[in-house]
This record gives sequence, structure tokens and C-alpha cells, in this order.
Amino acid sequence: MLSLDKVFNAQTVLKGIVRETGLVRAYGIAPECELYLKPENLQITGSFKVRGSAYKIAMLSDEEKAKGVIACSAGNHAQGVALAASKNGIKSLICLPDTAPISKVEATKGYGADVCLVEGCYDDAYKKALELKESEGYTFVHPFDDENVIAGQGTIALEVLNDLDNIDAIVVPIGGGGLISGIAYAVKKIKPSVKVYGVQVAGAPSMYNSINAGKIECLPSVHTIADGIAVKQPGENTFNLVKKYVDDIAIVSDDEVASAILALIEKQKMIAEGAGATSVAAVMFDKFGLKGKRVVSIVSGGNIDVTSLSRVIDRGLLNSGRSSSLLIELIDKPGQLKDISRIIADCGGNVTGVHYEKGNTESINGCYLRIEMETRDYNHVKLIVESLRKEGFKIV
Amino acid sequence: MLSLDKVFNAQTVLKGIVRETGLVRAYGIAPECELYLKPENLQITGSFKVRGSAYKIAMLSDEEKAKGVIACSAGNHAQGVALAASKNGIKSLICLPDTAPISKVEATKGYGADVCLVEGCYDDAYKKALELKESEGYTFVHPFDDENVIAGQGTIALEVLNDLDNIDAIVVPIGGGGLISGIAYAVKKIKPSVKVYGVQVAGAPSMYNSINAGKIECLPSVHTIADGIAVKQPGENTFNLVKKYVDDIAIVSDDEVASAILALIEKQKMIAEGAGATSVAAVMFDKFGLKGKRVVSIVSGGNIDVTSLSRVIDRGLLNSGRSSSLLIELIDKPGQLKDISRIIADCGGNVTGVHYEKGNTESINGCYLRIEMETRDYNHVKLIVESLRKEGFKIV
Repeated sequence: MLSLDKVFNAQTVLKGIVRETGLVRAYGIAPECELYLKPENLQITGSFKVRGSAYKIAMLSDEEKAKGVIACSAGNHAQGVALAASKNGIKSLICLPDTAPISKVEATKGYGADVCLVEGCYDDAYKKALELKESEGYTFVHPFDDENVIAGQGTIALEVLNDLDNIDAIVVPIGGGGLISGIAYAVKKIKPSVKVYGVQVAGAPSMYNSINAGKIECLPSVHTIADGIAVKQPGENTFNLVKKYVDDIAIVSDDEVASAILALIEKQKMIAEGAGATSVAAVMFDKFGLKGKRVVSIVSGGNIDVTSLSRVIDRGLLNSGRSSSLLIELIDKPGQLKDISRIIADCGGNVTGVHYEKGNTESINGCYLRIEMETRDYNHVKLIVESLRKEGFKIV
Repeated sequence: MLSLDKVFNAQTVLKGIVRETGLVRAYGIAPECELYLKPENLQITGSFKVRGSAYKIAMLSDEEKAKGVIACSAGNHAQGVALAASKNGIKSLICLPDTAPISKVEATKGYGADVCLVEGCYDDAYKKALELKESEGYTFVHPFDDENVIAGQGTIALEVLNDLDNIDAIVVPIGGGGLISGIAYAVKKIKPSVKVYGVQVAGAPSMYNSINAGKIECLPSVHTIADGIAVKQPGENTFNLVKKYVDDIAIVSDDEVASAILALIEKQKMIAEGAGATSVAAVMFDKFGLKGKRVVSIVSGGNIDVTSLSRVIDRGLLNSGRSSSLLIELIDKPGQLKDISRIIADCGGNVTGVHYEKGNTESINGCYLRIEMETRDYNHVKLIVESLRKEGFKIV
């Protein structure tokens, strides 16, 4: 049974294993709130997950510890289990689909786990993990639907309540629901006046749908940049805890998450992964009506690979008019590129790419010129477009 | 006169204005050192600079405060002065060249300063600031060559020595030298056994050259991605303090800085600007022979604009073989792109760009195909190239 004692006990047990991440006051992200971030992206392993698995593992009997633990994950949970097992001096085996990115496999091995690559998808790896648990006697560490795991995540609430008074609301990402279950349980037992809000992404609204339906529902598929919370179905424990203790759940879009990631980079010099940024996105885009309130957003993790990060930044630059692309219809005669370059330079735009493209232009001698530029904002793009039009260029 | 008293006094004065940034243990960046980061990128205004200017401003007489302060900077110093003046309830005027990026102008205004845009370059803005100081009676806040500014920066050393015992070395970026002067002075007065090392970039080695020459030297020009330390000439105070208290200075390249920025993103979930990452680059690339040592790198700031960040990431991906570009010579016949796509897909590469280019190919019917891909590492690129060659494609 989950109890407040268990959460406090977890806090004691986790000392020296996990970092106590201090709240950071965030200016400029959601100017109408007094926003604080709980930076679990700066947690060891780059995510809060290590709290739950470390507590789960510490509570095992000596016999269970001697046999070791098994888990199935390609992400933060795997790294949390691997590190927690190493710190407890026990063996861990992580089952992964063989399609998992090399970088994640290497990171998991780096924290001391053995890795079992299973042909197929996540479900195949999960099945394999359950088989091995039976045949080898490993303890299975569930990523969220386990009371000790939930108690471990709940230690975040103890730290937050200890760090800051008069909190109006805590905003928490939801995947399987382990993190928010632990936090909401502890908060409502200690300080029930503090609201606890959950956030899911439009591409994976499993808890949101389940709560609205009044029963656990399973999504046929999930698709989002917030891969850390792309969970098809909540757990039984987490569903019941969320139903009982969480005040409301909102949905954010992938574009809102990308904007939050970019805002955290620009304003806070911090990298959040998609899942970790959902709680910030929900406050930025005011999903819970928190203007004027003192709010804590849990930034649950920072494990985003740089390729994705690069795409998120590019998308964010495009969305805010800081990079742009123009397609200009040209009549084939000398000096056109020279004139276009001059106009853009005079307006202060910085050309970063030029491509000639054939196409169905008005004149048979025509062609299209694709210009990529760094610009200041939408007004700057507009200024350049108008200047080009004034000199007779046709922007498609 | 700089004194240890002054540095301790600055620490008291700065309480409530600046953040005490806690040391962060960094795993995986320089595995052979016990590396800690002092994350001044998470300082308010995104850089350590606010410490020096806030102490300088707090120490002004009431008469001086009534007249206000003036500074000349397009970067971290401007934001530090603006915020420090606001916190002290006094007026600040920042002179900027009119070529300064809009984003920096807006950030400076956002912290409460008035901005004076001066036609021309940095030197013109500096001249204007000195004129206004004379005619209006403002106090000029120098970015580094001022004893109160240096004492303010020295508070970083007090925090570091208080946080961690048995430090072998502290590694510090050098621009004008204010930061390292304050840190080296305090460290050598309190715990002279701790080494203090400075880092400059190859494109702006003004202090390095000056110390080696035994006198202040001026660079004709500076060019680096570490714009925060692109300083042509050290100050008199800072030159003398560095000469007396700093153990050694090393030079890092822009590519090493870019690798350090990427490592901080991937391993620490932190954004550093170029200048801020130099101290990490110096440890990563072992410029001071610190293997096995307990080292603190001062990450001095995080104010990098996302456009530059995006370029740094792209460069880093390219440098580590995680993105790559192939130029393939084709004979113009149907099905070539299909075959190439199949080979790359079979190898697990992810195509992100395809361009046909004309060129001086062997066959008059030939053309070049430029393929951009996401790859895992250099070996993966090699595998793809070899597979393409095996099926008869010519990689240029």
C-alpha cells in the first residue's frame, strides 16, 4: 500500500543516490505567472526515473537482490534501473527492441546494465523480459505501475514543498502516470490546497482519455516528439491515483512542446526532452488558467538526442520568423541573383541557401529561385518580401 | 585597491541580487578527470557579468547613483549593468553599435536600461559612451578593468571553495580578464595550492600574447564563435593580476569549443555560449594535463542565440559522423535514385536531403547526386559508402 511514510522513507533511502534538484525561478517564459522549474533534466541519468527504480531496488529482499532485476525500456527507465542496480551492487538486464538507437543502448550499458536486444518492437522486448523473469527469477521493475516506484517519484513533491511556500499549483507530465501519481499523492496528503495538474500530448492522450471515460482505455498507436510519455495505456494503480488526487489534465500539441523546448533553451539555458517540456508548454499556453499564480512545472527529463534537438530548433526558428524560405519566380536573364542579393542584404537579411529549380513558370524561359535566409522576425520577412515585390520580383 | 575584504564584502552585498550557482558534477565529458562545473550560464541574465557590475553599482556614492551609469556592450555586460542598475533603483544607459542584433537590444531594454544606438562599430559606441559620461556625469561601468568589478567576479571563487574540498585546479575563460583576475586573486589568497588556469580562443589570444610578451599587446582583429571573450586587449589591472596569480593559459580552437558546447548539451542538458564552453573544452582536450585531478570549470555564460546554436549542433553532428553528405556521380538512366535509396535504407541511414547537380562528369549524360543523411557514426558512413561502391556507384 502506498503511504506517506513510504514516500518519506524513499527520500531517506535515495540520499546519496539521486540529486536533490533545486527549484529555478524562470523569468520570461510565462510572464504572467510566477513560474518555478523543478529541473529533473539535471537529475543524474538526465531524468526523474532513477528515483522510482532506485527505491524499488533498495526495497528488494536480499534473495531478490542476489537474482538481479530486469526491465524493458529504450529510454530513461532503462538508464534509471541500470544506475540504481549498479549503486546497489546488483545485476540488471535490460531488454530492448533491436531497432533501438545505438546511443540509447550504449548509454544503458554505460550505467552498468547488461543489454538483451530482442528482434521486433517494444512489445516483443516486453514479452521477452517477462519470459526471462519467469525462467531466471529476476525481479521485474515496472516503469510506472508499482507502489515503490511511485513512492520514489513522490520524493519530488517533498523537495518542492520544502523549497517553496505558498505554491498554487504543480504541473506534471503524464506518460504511464507514475510521476504524477507519486507527486499528487504526497501533495494532497501534506498540503491539499496545492493543485496538481497533469499534461499529456495530443499524440498520446491515454490517461486523459481513460479519466474522461471513467475506465482504463488503450490507444491503438501513439505518435509525438515527446517520446518519453508516448504510452498507450495507463497502469491500474496510476489510473486510480490520478482519478483520486489529480485536479485536471490538459493536452498540448507537438508544436507547443517544441516552443517550450526552445524557450527553455533561450531563457533558461536548459535542455529538456519533449516529455519534460510538456509541463512548461501547458503553462506557456495557459491551459489551466494560472495567470498571477505561483506555479511549479516539473521538467521531468532532458534526454533528447541532438538530431531531434536540431530539428526542434529549426522548427522553432521557422515558427518565429527567425529563419525563412522564399520561392521567387524568375525570368531567365543575367543579373537577377545580383539584384535579389542586394535587396535582401540592404534589408539586413542573411542568405544561407540558394537553389535554382525548374518548374511550370509563366515564361518558358523562367525558373524558380529558392532563397533561404536568417531573419529577425515575421516583420523582417515581410519587409524583405515587400522590397522584392517593389522591384518587380514575383514571390510565389 | 583589490583586497580579500572587498571580495567578501561583495559576497554580502550581492546576496539577494545574484544566484549562488551550485557546483554540478559532470560525468562523461572528460572521463579521466573528476570534473565539476560552476554553471554561471544559469546565473540571472545568463552570465557571471552581473556580479561585477552589481557590486560596482552598489558601491557608488548617493550622488553618483543619482546621476546613473553608462556602459558600452552588446552582450552580457550590458544585461548585467541593466539588471544591477534596476535592482539598485538607478538609471542606466547602454551604448550599442546600430549593427547589434535586435535580440540583444531587446534583452538589454528588458532588464530596464535605456539604449543609445550609435552609428558604426563597437569603437564608435565606446567613444559615444565616454562623451556622454563627460557631458552628463554618468559613471562609466567598465566591463573588466575595474577593481570593484573584479571583486564582484571574485565571489565565484568564494562559492567554489565553500562548496568543494581538495580542488586541484579551477579553469576559467579569459576575455578582458576580469573574471579570472577576481577568481585567481581570491583563490591564491585563501588556498594558494589550488591551481588557476586561464583559457582563450585561437581567434582572440590577447591575454595569452600579452603575458608571453611580458607587456600588454593589442590584436588588430578578433574572430571566434566565443564572441563573449573576443577582446582585442587586456586591461592594465587584469594584465597585472593575471601575471601575478594565474598559473598558466592555454588556447582552444573554435572546433574544440563547438565540441564542448555539444558535450554540455548531451551530457549535462545545459546550454553554454562559446566563451562559457572554453573552460570545458580545455579540460576535454586536456590542455593542462589534469588527468586524475579534481577540476572545476567555470561555465561563464549561456547567452548563445539559437541560430548560432543550430550551426554549432550541425557542425558537431557532422564532426562526429552523425550527419553526412555524399556526392555521387550518376549516369543518367532510370532507377538510379531508387537503387541508391534502397542501399542507404538497407544500411540503416536516414536520407534528409537529395539534390541533383550538373557538373563536369565523365559522361556527357552524367550528373551529380548530393545525398544528405543522418547516420550513427563514421563507421556507419563508411559502411554506406562501401555498399554503394560495391553496387558500382562512384562516390566523389
